[in-house]
Amino acid sequence: MFESAEIGHSIDKEAYDAEVPALREALLEAQYELKQQARFPVIVLINGIEGAGKGETVKLLNEWMDPRMIDVLTFDQQTDEELARPPAWRYWRALPPKGRMGVFFGNWYSQMLQGRVHGVFKDAVLDQAITGAERLEQMLCDEGALIIKFWFHLSKKQMKARLKSLKDDPLHSWKISPLDWQQSQTYDRFVRFGERVLRRTSRDYAPWHIIEGVDPNYRSLAVGRILLESLQAALANNPKGKHQGNVAPLGHSIDDRSLLGALDMTLRLDKADYQEQLITEQARLAGLLRDKRMRRHALVAVFEGNDAAGKGGAIRRVAAALDPRQYRIVPIAAPTEEERAQPYLWRFWRHIPARGKFTIFDRSWYGRVLVERVEGFCSPADWMRAYSEINDFEEQLVDAGVVVVKFWLAIDQQTQLERFEEREQIPFKRYKITEDDWRNRDKWDEYSQAVGDMVDRTSSEIAPWTLVEANDKRWARVKVVRTINQALEAAFAKHKK
Amino acid sequence: MFESAEIGHSIDKEAYDAEVPALREALLEAQYELKQQARFPVIVLINGIEGAGKGETVKLLNEWMDPRMIDVLTFDQQTDEELARPPAWRYWRALPPKGRMGVFFGNWYSQMLQGRVHGVFKDAVLDQAITGAERLEQMLCDEGALIIKFWFHLSKKQMKARLKSLKDDPLHSWKISPLDWQQSQTYDRFVRFGERVLRRTSRDYAPWHIIEGVDPNYRSLAVGRILLESLQAALANNPKGKHQGNVAPLGHSIDDRSLLGALDMTLRLDKADYQEQLITEQARLAGLLRDKRMRRHALVAVFEGNDAAGKGGAIRRVAAALDPRQYRIVPIAAPTEEERAQPYLWRFWRHIPARGKFTIFDRSWYGRVLVERVEGFCSPADWMRAYSEINDFEEQLVDAGVVVVKFWLAIDQQTQLERFEEREQIPFKRYKITEDDWRNRDKWDEYSQAVGDMVDRTSSEIAPWTLVEANDKRWARVKVVRTINQALEAAFAKHKK
Repeated sequence: MFESAEIGHSIDKEAYDAEVPALREALLEAQYELKQQARFPVIVLINGIEGAGKGETVKLLNEWMDPRMIDVLTFDQQTDEELARPPAWRYWRALPPKGRMGVFFGNWYSQMLQGRVHGVFKDAVLDQAITGAERLEQMLCDEGALIIKFWFHLSKKQMKARLKSLKDDPLHSWKISPLDWQQSQTYDRFVRFGERVLRRTSRDYAPWHIIEGVDPNYRSLAVGRILLESLQAALANNPKGKHQGNVAPLGHSIDDRSLLGALDMTLRLDKADYQEQLITEQARLAGLLRDKRMRRHALVAVFEGNDAAGKGGAIRRVAAALDPRQYRIVPIAAPTEEERAQPYLWRFWRHIPARGKFTIFDRSWYGRVLVERVEGFCSPADWMRAYSEINDFEEQLVDAGVVVVKFWLAIDQQTQLERFEEREQIPFKRYKITEDDWRNRDKWDEYSQAVGDMVDRTSSEIAPWTLVEANDKRWARVKVVRTINQALEAAFAKHKK
Repeated sequence: MFESAEIGHSIDKEAYDAEVPALREALLEAQYELKQQARFPVIVLINGIEGAGKGETVKLLNEWMDPRMIDVLTFDQQTDEELARPPAWRYWRALPPKGRMGVFFGNWYSQMLQGRVHGVFKDAVLDQAITGAERLEQMLCDEGALIIKFWFHLSKKQMKARLKSLKDDPLHSWKISPLDWQQSQTYDRFVRFGERVLRRTSRDYAPWHIIEGVDPNYRSLAVGRILLESLQAALANNPKGKHQGNVAPLGHSIDDRSLLGALDMTLRLDKADYQEQLITEQARLAGLLRDKRMRRHALVAVFEGNDAAGKGGAIRRVAAALDPRQYRIVPIAAPTEEERAQPYLWRFWRHIPARGKFTIFDRSWYGRVLVERVEGFCSPADWMRAYSEINDFEEQLVDAGVVVVKFWLAIDQQTQLERFEEREQIPFKRYKITEDDWRNRDKWDEYSQAVGDMVDRTSSEIAPWTLVEANDKRWARVKVVRTINQALEAAFAKHKK
């Protein structure tokens, strides 16, 4: 895999000097165009052998291009805020918005390679990390990002020579860290696992570019050209047309049965039972959140449901059990300008709770496969891929100890009608009912279909959906609080083993 | 000061039950109106004696109102990301945007009171903290925020009784933390310093409301009513008319001399001197940023200047000295939607570097007193108060160890004309010149006046302005890098003492 990068590529000064001015000018223009279009972000990943000129190349690119439009990010020691959340959170918070370029040093590849090279884990875990990286990049590209991955290579001999020459040059000796030297001993392992990683993560949408690092002229020109060509191609390309080709249709129910139709909508609680059970479950919830095992977990509760199904009321019964300092409610409305400049899931990642905390999402990332699907706010390809993106997202949460509880509050059409009419008559409830609600109601069947598909495709052993029969608000509220309690207890019990 | 809150206020159940429904409805409506107008944020500060019902009241408000529009925030242990920045950073990052309500537990008052009560510092430091709080709140109110400050009080006897009854009630005993009990011993000190703080920070724009905490009915109604009245008054008020009355005019130069006019614009460096001096200063900068004393500091460099004065080129010469991982360049353009929903300085606070880091602002918070003043984007009252807000802001940076270096790159009109014309002719520089640049040029004298005022009012011993004679780019670049070096060395030397 590194054969072509060990043959001693070089460019002489004359050829180099002849090419640089035009390259530089073209890069600047592409950068400006990127900013003007503000249509996609550029993510440049910098990996490879120590001493192969990673830092120098990035420095040079910052000199050639306008450094004001480039964010160079380094990910070394995690902060405690990062340690309290899923590993990918630190990358999500650093993603460049559309129109900007982020250069990621010490990215997900460095982390997995360091771990494997130093024997922190074996191939199986490395492969998990590889799959995670692949999925992240696939998703970023689907969202329009341009990802350019550079691997700077040196043969073992070249590396040793380079490190030695750097050491002997007093002007540059500070550039070598002890880590670099250490790497010369781990070179073989690094290259072996590097090949595994590159082989499995070089994909059409985000291929690796292997750069021989010996000759600065060669390496600079090679990187500059790849960057320029990638930028120009992406700027000329209209991604609106992308990925629209082959969207496999979802099957429709071929008898009349549906998941929502199978719910027993007559379930109810009388007032006395309700009050007793609710207070019991609320006390249980309060206790669980104060349990010291909660420190190892976080809790995310997602509330979706028909309009007027009682999401707000259910959320308030959950909240009422708790000290307001323990939870945070995130109402999901239209994305802000900064959110629109990022991949779809970014606006949820930013609200992921730290360990020990509880976030309630009042509507959620499932908007993609519900309202956005039904109303045509995104393309079928976009919401189709959302199912697996969401599954990946939730898996990352769960892997990090987050307990994910998801509710669909279901009512029937007659109940909705009654509640709409009631809302229109009670003054302080009037703001809860809008034209949109009536419009959505006309699309009842389409929403039901979308809900069925959503549950079928995203209810899993790690983050199951709970369908809540909500014609009776009392029944629904008790079921919601109880379900959260059961999920927490299960997580606590599992951890103990 | 607490006399009225020790007389045993109470409301009987009947009166309470009679009032609550209407109060609740009105609060919900005000909340909805707040969201609709999205014109200002509401910040509720919760302080006072332990056991006086702070937590219970906030919980109740969350039940009465729609908790989805309220963020309850608690500030206990600082995270390492917070510890690496000025103390106020944690509050800035948690500010509610316009249209939302943030309830701050454990806010700046709790911190200063804890510190004083436990003898971490004496009155002088407490008074500094008080002044800081006052200035922060004044600024927030000037920016339109509604601040409501509640102090929950109990007499010493009441407090002891309440803690005891809570302890004896098995359902509530978990509510008392060891800290609460400890407070019963420090009650006297807490009340004494509390009075000092309240006396000095109860201002017309953000008065304290002292609530006797013994009777839940009384305390809940009292808080609910104050909240409602404050909200209704603010919603009815048009802040556009506020603070416009008395803006003291700035004096104008009464002879023909000006600060910028006094610069020696003939200063220049020949090529050889330039190359030698630049490389020397760059090496010095690289060394300083790698110095271990840098770990105690952060560096902020602000670049302002005439159009075409060479800000970009100067920034690049600074950047060229460094590893791109060491600095971050923040170009300041029009604020985003999320930034517009916050106080003016918010969008700069979010980019304040952690200790050990370096942030370069390409244009900055000084836009308020430059382009916004000259173009009339804000009112005279707004930019007039900006001088002291900026001084306060920079003082907080410097107090936290941030070295603040500010450059005004000055060129004369003839030089600007030549550069504009040159830019229009060179293809890859063409994007650097816009209609705006020509328009700004027509307002040369107004900008000069604004720069003079800015320097006079914000150049201080802690964060001085450096005026850079930039007709000769070489001279300017060397002066910029050298000035940064001198500032860093001075900071390092000072710390040593």
